[in-house]
Amino acid sequence: MGMTSTDFAEMPCPIARSLDRVGEWWSILILRDALAGMTRFDQFQRNLGIAPNILTRRLAGLVEAGLLEKRRYSERPPRHEYVLTPRGRDFREVLQALFAWGNRHFAPEGASLLMANRATGELADPVLVDRNSGRRMTDPVFRVVAGPAATPAVHAQLAARKPADPASD
Amino acid sequence: MGMTSTDFAEMPCPIARSLDRVGEWWSILILRDALAGMTRFDQFQRNLGIAPNILTRRLAGLVEAGLLEKRRYSERPPRHEYVLTPRGRDFREVLQALFAWGNRHFAPEGASLLMANRATGELADPVLVDRNSGRRMTDPVFRVVAGPAATPAVHAQLAARKPADPASD
Repeated sequence: MGMTSTDFAEMPCPIARSLDRVGEWWSILILRDALAGMTRFDQFQRNLGIAPNILTRRLAGLVEAGLLEKRRYSERPPRHEYVLTPRGRDFREVLQALFAWGNRHFAPEGASLLMANRATGELADPVLVDRNSGRRMTDPVFRVVAGPAATPAVHAQLAARKPADPASD
Repeated sequence: MGMTSTDFAEMPCPIARSLDRVGEWWSILILRDALAGMTRFDQFQRNLGIAPNILTRRLAGLVEAGLLEKRRYSERPPRHEYVLTPRGRDFREVLQALFAWGNRHFAPEGASLLMANRATGELADPVLVDRNSGRRMTDPVFRVVAGPAATPAVHAQLAARKPADPASD
């Protein structure tokens, strides 16, 4: 299977680290459903059609990664629910970007689901922008640079990545 | 293993469909490296530390999903490179959203990598906004609605999702 998930967690790249914490596809769909308001085991299970043992494992992984919090909401009988933490709620933007990309490319028959403003009914068209300048992040002016915690290996990797043509850098 | 990837492809949700096409974590990191300019098998292999048979499989999956195109760049010896398609390039926004989320939550020692404007050096702060209104997509005014291709099952699911409190809808 190549690298284990532990290796992903140790990579300096924030994308790799995120993938390690989110777990796998099921976890992403569980987060999607949690953001849609679901909190209970049977709700997730019914909506996802997932085997209970896999759901148990994925929920535990999301709790361990700090994306969900397990809360007891009934003492007799003992019942738990899974509530998004601020970190889990903040994943909404990533899912919305994935949602928009999926609709652009994998809905040949037309979109089954869209995002809209609930007050006006207007459809939303989510795009990623730089909050400081308002510029679209697809603008090639944006590039990845070393941050304060970059190791010499990270600096070397970024240097190797630069295109040969100085006009494009 | 519960659902197979085929089932994901048949879900109406654009997030599930996207996950099906992207494949798994390795595929996301391959796309990340392709967006950083890599095109050749040995470049991906060196950067990812991935087993050759897994890399071969993931590259084939990304070609099949229409995210990469396999091009012969040398006849003797026969050599191929993997070039992003427009659909693959469009995945950049999803990765940038994941990048920003990872830095916010999984870089306790400080960021190793950041995004910056290459002209001014200013750091970028990527946020998702609605292109039409400029409003942040985190605004609770945005919700998921049925699109033109929604089946009765999708409509029923959305109706069941609505919170009981009418003030919050």
